[in-house]
Amino acid sequence: MYLAKIYVTLKPTVNDPQGLTIKGGLHTLGFDSVQSVRSGKYIEVRVDISDRAKAEEQVNEMCDRLLANPVIEDFRFELEEIKS
Amino acid sequence: MYLAKIYVTLKPTVNDPQGLTIKGGLHTLGFDSVQSVRSGKYIEVRVDISDRAKAEEQVNEMCDRLLANPVIEDFRFELEEIKS
Repeated sequence: MYLAKIYVTLKPTVNDPQGLTIKGGLHTLGFDSVQSVRSGKYIEVRVDISDRAKAEEQVNEMCDRLLANPVIEDFRFELEEIKS
Repeated sequence: MYLAKIYVTLKPTVNDPQGLTIKGGLHTLGFDSVQSVRSGKYIEVRVDISDRAKAEEQVNEMCDRLLANPVIEDFRFELEEIKS
């Protein structure tokens, strides 16, 4: 059993209106040191696979097919073994 | 200058309909090994502060006041120094 911690971020060249809004909010609250904000998604997926390579392959395919939009987003993930 | 990588997740006891929807989608695509999915947010904030302790304090306050809802969400972050 593995826990995949998946990070999905917008590609650097893609506009991020949500990030800009957060940045504006932080400035309004007085956090003037904030230079830039990029927003993304964080997804934890628990998979019942005992082989690490197989789990990695499956999670990679999940990201490609559903969790990230490869046109505008990048993804990366870490696998953590869960002792059951 | 520091880059804060912030992870905001729902507290374990809080319902996560988005996670359930993703889980359903993954099952529909044939990923039967998926046991559970939890969704969250990933935010990168660049702060122009040279002192690490001060940056940590500021980012902590940002999370508390704007980025996370402390009633239903937990957050954690990592600081990475950026050489400019």
